[in-house]
Amino acid sequence: MELNDTFKKIKAFVFDVDGVLTDGRILATMDGELLRSFDSKDGFGLRMANMNGYHLGIITGGRSESITLRFKTCGIAPENIYKGSRDKMIDFRDFCQKHGLQPEEIMYFGDDLPDLPVMQASGCGVAPADAVQDVKEAADFVSPYAGGRGCVRNTIEMVMKIQDRWHLDVDDYAKKF
Amino acid sequence: MELNDTFKKIKAFVFDVDGVLTDGRILATMDGELLRSFDSKDGFGLRMANMNGYHLGIITGGRSESITLRFKTCGIAPENIYKGSRDKMIDFRDFCQKHGLQPEEIMYFGDDLPDLPVMQASGCGVAPADAVQDVKEAADFVSPYAGGRGCVRNTIEMVMKIQDRWHLDVDDYAKKF
Amino acid sequence: MELNDTFKKIKAFVFDVDGVLTDGRILATMDGELLRSFDSKDGFGLRMANMNGYHLGIITGGRSESITLRFKTCGIAPENIYKGSRDKMIDFRDFCQKHGLQPEEIMYFGDDLPDLPVMQASGCGVAPADAVQDVKEAADFVSPYAGGRGCVRNTIEMVMKIQDRWHLDVDDYAKKF
Amino acid sequence: MELNDTFKKIKAFVFDVDGVLTDGRILATMDGELLRSFDSKDGFGLRMANMNGYHLGIITGGRSESITLRFKTCGIAPENIYKGSRDKMIDFRDFCQKHGLQPEEIMYFGDDLPDLPVMQASGCGVAPADAVQDVKEAADFVSPYAGGRGCVRNTIEMVMKIQDRWHLDVDDYAKKF
Repeated sequence: MELNDTFKKIKAFVFDVDGVLTDGRILATMDGELLRSFDSKDGFGLRMANMNGYHLGIITGGRSESITLRFKTCGIAPENIYKGSRDKMIDFRDFCQKHGLQPEEIMYFGDDLPDLPVMQASGCGVAPADAVQDVKEAADFVSPYAGGRGCVRNTIEMVMKIQDRWHLDVDDYAKKF
Repeated sequence: MELNDTFKKIKAFVFDVDGVLTDGRILATMDGELLRSFDSKDGFGLRMANMNGYHLGIITGGRSESITLRFKTCGIAPENIYKGSRDKMIDFRDFCQKHGLQPEEIMYFGDDLPDLPVMQASGCGVAPADAVQDVKEAADFVSPYAGGRGCVRNTIEMVMKIQDRWHLDVDDYAKKF
Repeated sequence: MELNDTFKKIKAFVFDVDGVLTDGRILATMDGELLRSFDSKDGFGLRMANMNGYHLGIITGGRSESITLRFKTCGIAPENIYKGSRDKMIDFRDFCQKHGLQPEEIMYFGDDLPDLPVMQASGCGVAPADAVQDVKEAADFVSPYAGGRGCVRNTIEMVMKIQDRWHLDVDDYAKKF
Repeated sequence: MELNDTFKKIKAFVFDVDGVLTDGRILATMDGELLRSFDSKDGFGLRMANMNGYHLGIITGGRSESITLRFKTCGIAPENIYKGSRDKMIDFRDFCQKHGLQPEEIMYFGDDLPDLPVMQASGCGVAPADAVQDVKEAADFVSPYAGGRGCVRNTIEMVMKIQDRWHLDVDDYAKKF
């Protein structure tokens, strides 16, 4: 199947966090918290997907409450943010069931070994340009952009444009965010 | 009209924040705040514009008080910092009216879709080198420098040099900042 | 001896922190703390080494408690984290003795002059691509990746794959981390 | 005069901070503080200069107490750290007088317009690779490395090696830092 056909089936975007929605850096604070820097253009891409009716989910090994707070501002409800995930397939199946989605309707973004099973089970596994080699080889699509530096935003935009659903309604934007 | 002629008419600089005055990274903290890193050379460029009589404004979707505090140290008064902006045209018109400026006297810097209407309404729309493609195509000038990495400083300096107004008075600098 | 043969003898990985497990940047806070950003893929590499039976140690000039907290989440016990180290050979010898290891069974990662003696005493001295010149010249292996940007993760993975010990057991991962 | 001869006369290193000892990024916090990330290899270079008898000074427009705290750990006493500097020549003259130094014995590192007078007054003005164009043109030496990414460390090391004073005494290091 061609990539475009795969893209046309996507109804949901699910993401690992570190190295995908960030550049992989984690700031360690004095009280043991691990803080991340997110990308503003990724954030706008997530909001565009949310406003145009896509399901969004996060499956991350990270545990910081700051992750939940950040993605709430992008339209991802806390119940779709799976933190402290070790066996990501369990959380992926839960996400599918909760939203009545088939795995092939989901695009999953990952960059390291714990992401591999979900990337293979999902309809389209996406790897950032700086994912580890084993993940890039298993991906359906390797973005030319690195994690936290355009990979998520650019890929969401590609999918939504192919589906002719990349539209910004400023009033809706003002109402929702 | 040539770019130089456009540059000669500019009396005010107005900026989006994320991806323009920053590299797009947003640090999510434990209490839900989103913090930015600004660039020191951009800061000095803003002060040069302020000291030499240009109007300066900020129109950003961000809401953090830290944005206001940072730009106050660059000579941008709080009433010219529009935060939480969703329909940026509303804030742009308010800025014009407040200062008695025509849109063609304003240079606007933006990097993503919510910036497009203001970029097209203003006298000169500027995009950083790493703006999204749709914005770069709509811009009057695409800087060779990325957001938070020279785009703002270099463009301000170009405009002010063309107008022969790029002058540093150290005594004035010491008095104002 | 060929590099592969050197890699096959390694039973332990010991690391300098700044410029090796980070990109060298240190955030200075108002209360005099120095905070670091660590790399998520390095973190997973450390966990893989830990789960598959390698000894792990840290010898750093840094003193921040945040270092201890970060590496505990990667499976490095506080007694194997030597902080405020000035004469790194003392701490290296203590690490060897504590674990009954010979220096040639240890791979040591360093990027600056205080690392040189340990790099030369250990079985394999590794330098990130952006180490200082004197250290790169003394290293047994210069990684194509920079500090905090893949050097540690990629080299651990190379060693473990050569030893056929690069295996992820998801249940074990969920139990240990 | 050749660059080597200029380097041989240097007895003191004086630095601007933002864009020289940092990459120019300034993190704006909620309480109005501006925090910087410093480079670990620069820090070690400063300590080497300190241990081998060079005078060290900082002249910065920044005002954060975190600057003082960071450089104290590199052997720069608070009385040699000039903060909130607007007319840098005043602080430069004070530094010279305090230490009985002639301007030509001082190497000054700067990246922006407020640094120009001191760069021209000092024995050797150094600009990072990413300094603004006007500063690079006025510099005696333009480092191939950017600010916060090797410029300071590499240049100090070059000067000290030419003077045959780049020596690390581990016992002295342990005693002083």
